[in-house]
Amino acid sequence: MRALNPRPLTAEAFARYGDVIETRGAPREINYGHTLNYHDLAALDLSADGGRAAVSIFRSTPPTYPFAIRVMERHPKSSQAFIPLSGRPFLVVVAQAGVFDAGAVEAFVAAPGQGVNLRKDVWHHFNLALHAPSEFLVIDRDAADDNTDEVTLREPLLLHAPEPAS
Amino acid sequence: MRALNPRPLTAEAFARYGDVIETRGAPREINYGHTLNYHDLAALDLSADGGRAAVSIFRSTPPTYPFAIRVMERHPKSSQAFIPLSGRPFLVVVAQAGVFDAGAVEAFVAAPGQGVNLRKDVWHHFNLALHAPSEFLVIDRDAADDNTDEVTLREPLLLHAPEPAS
Repeated sequence: MRALNPRPLTAEAFARYGDVIETRGAPREINYGHTLNYHDLAALDLSADGGRAAVSIFRSTPPTYPFAIRVMERHPKSSQAFIPLSGRPFLVVVAQAGVFDAGAVEAFVAAPGQGVNLRKDVWHHFNLALHAPSEFLVIDRDAADDNTDEVTLREPLLLHAPEPAS
Repeated sequence: MRALNPRPLTAEAFARYGDVIETRGAPREINYGHTLNYHDLAALDLSADGGRAAVSIFRSTPPTYPFAIRVMERHPKSSQAFIPLSGRPFLVVVAQAGVFDAGAVEAFVAAPGQGVNLRKDVWHHFNLALHAPSEFLVIDRDAADDNTDEVTLREPLLLHAPEPAS
């Protein structure tokens, strides 16, 4: 099995898959100086075919690592964002949109202050908590139609947990 | 000055203003049992007049309490959601939509696991951190038009911090 070793999540490394939602760049000061606004951090794409923006909370239990990545999914009509609420890192496993290429699957470890917004059509594994059950805010599209494709890998990839935070 | 003493935030008490975003009710099990999905927790209302859903992070510095509430605002074209990212409680000061009534202003203390989604037109004070600078995920409407009304209270209200968490 090919090993997947997560690397740190950065906006640059993740640009081909979507946005990193984090306090980055120059905020605007609002509310009479009480608030810094890191504005409009993700290209949400939720309204195709009558879809509407929806917000949910996912409570994710970490699998046992190393963990075999066997199935990936994509949402052809919308973006999907995950923002950690529990102050713990998590893993993001992705592959570029288009024809699925198992050889191109990458893994990232998101720091507690980093969320991600997956662009429409980007292949990804379901949300992977680390260390302990963790909650995530999820912003995605609500509609009655189907909006998920799945692919089963011919050979699983073995996802290793990162070393404990240094 | 009339004193405002925050009471605990509950979905029932907040129903006239909007939604409480929290793990409540019966979740759906997804992702082969690794995830509980508390689905669609808020009536986001972001697409009027060509608006689109936007996600930002606000870093809020708490004012000194007791704090004089002098100005309230509302967004006539959209909802606005605040979800705490820093694991700390915060204060929500609101009044019903319609003609502003200073006598009807209420304050709530949101627990660290509670966000709020303010309905369109609901009067509210800007986001009020407690205890320490805190970050919030904000989901609101992005558009080029104006979407904020302000009202200045004839007589400020004096907002008291809640007793330390019991």
